[in-house]
Amino acid sequence: MDFLPTFALLVSYLGDPFCGFSKQDGLRTVQGEIERALQTIFRAPIQITCAGRTDSGVHARGQVVSFSVEPKLVENKTEHSICKSIDALTHETIRARKLMFVPQDFSARFNAMWREYRYRFYCGKEAPLFSAPYTWWASKNSDLDIEAMRQAAQYLIGEHDFKSFCVTQSAEGKNTVRELMSIDIYEEDLLGEPAMVLRVVGNAFLHSMVRTLMGTLLEVGIGRRSPEWVQEVLEAKNRADAGQTAPANGLVLWHVEYPDPVSALDPIGQFRAV
Amino acid sequence: MDFLPTFALLVSYLGDPFCGFSKQDGLRTVQGEIERALQTIFRAPIQITCAGRTDSGVHARGQVVSFSVEPKLVENKTEHSICKSIDALTHETIRARKLMFVPQDFSARFNAMWREYRYRFYCGKEAPLFSAPYTWWASKNSDLDIEAMRQAAQYLIGEHDFKSFCVTQSAEGKNTVRELMSIDIYEEDLLGEPAMVLRVVGNAFLHSMVRTLMGTLLEVGIGRRSPEWVQEVLEAKNRADAGQTAPANGLVLWHVEYPDPVSALDPIGQFRAV
Repeated sequence: MDFLPTFALLVSYLGDPFCGFSKQDGLRTVQGEIERALQTIFRAPIQITCAGRTDSGVHARGQVVSFSVEPKLVENKTEHSICKSIDALTHETIRARKLMFVPQDFSARFNAMWREYRYRFYCGKEAPLFSAPYTWWASKNSDLDIEAMRQAAQYLIGEHDFKSFCVTQSAEGKNTVRELMSIDIYEEDLLGEPAMVLRVVGNAFLHSMVRTLMGTLLEVGIGRRSPEWVQEVLEAKNRADAGQTAPANGLVLWHVEYPDPVSALDPIGQFRAV
Repeated sequence: MDFLPTFALLVSYLGDPFCGFSKQDGLRTVQGEIERALQTIFRAPIQITCAGRTDSGVHARGQVVSFSVEPKLVENKTEHSICKSIDALTHETIRARKLMFVPQDFSARFNAMWREYRYRFYCGKEAPLFSAPYTWWASKNSDLDIEAMRQAAQYLIGEHDFKSFCVTQSAEGKNTVRELMSIDIYEEDLLGEPAMVLRVVGNAFLHSMVRTLMGTLLEVGIGRRSPEWVQEVLEAKNRADAGQTAPANGLVLWHVEYPDPVSALDPIGQFRAV
């Protein structure tokens, strides 16, 4: 096979303006925007692969996409100039942050070691205002048992079949085993508005998995279910047994980790697998 | 004079949807929205007074407004029911947070002891994305000298004639002496996006004063001016000598403090005048 220049792109975007990441005819999607920009830049159709196919309304801080280009098309172009062009040619809420030349066999999807998602949720009397675009107002009742949620989360850590936490149609005949390396819940203030953040790190995630984990853990937090119930949900391997799918706006694809040197794409990577 | 039931209302709002606080014919304003709601609730025209007349695009977390109502109009109404009705009848980005019965001579404007404003600004290569609605992207150059800004701020603390920091037409023939009790600058992360916050506490503020303080201190921060220059600006009593008026979106009217018991309106009041 001939040498094919391959790139990894770090990209951030807001969820609201897009019907999700994956391309759909006639709809504005993140993939559609980036591929259209690449076609303008290289004057050839180019297909991209992403680390996490975010749903409609889900935000991304550290999404990574990869793509390959015919050698003659990259002549007189630099990583920096391509990145600037992608940024200029896509919707204003898509930010091409860094482009890196990577080995030809690199895939943003298959080379990812782990992904980190953060979900911001709030239980209390006053609806979020400044933080509304990034926060699920989960309940008017502020009596949230965070310790019970943390206990429940312990049942989810490790390698499990997460079929109960996947959109039913997406789970059909697929391998639904994934490994969660860490789940933690902490408080975070945004312009004076408090909320809790559910931070989940795993090798990979199923369709709507983080939002279903969120909706399920909330059942425990508001006292409707015990922490042990989460273990039953896991064992049931049935989506109907889990909690609701929490809304998209609270979720951010925060970071994707790769082996060096691609990890240099996004140098925040505080997480270290235990 | 007959007894006139008087109320103080704590209210939050986003800046963008409004042409500022003060009522203007044919334009959507915060005052216009609240007075329209009050007219619906009490079936009589009611005029409100606010603690800080925020400009178009300026946000408020802790705005306070006061108003009086004929005794017969408040029959069968509670503070809670009036507050809920104001919330329901105003634009969705106006949040009536608490209503309190106050002494008849109370004025949200004249009884305020001090006001706190916060201005969020960022100097760096990457434009803010998640925090864009609340942050001024002041410079692409990340070499900001915060210590020099803090030194410069020391010249502004205390009672001074702030005419140089006031919109020229607004200063004409007016008393432009105000007292700044504290200015500090600190770092604040918003969904992974860092920025600096200028926090200013003063007895009262002139038209565009905080935004002009911000624009002036930035001149020092980016090294175009020395900290001592701010003293010269102050002494010149001429708006033309100060820096630019920083944009509205970075500014939040954070808190207004009143003597007890009205201070209970917004129990954050961490500031204590030295």
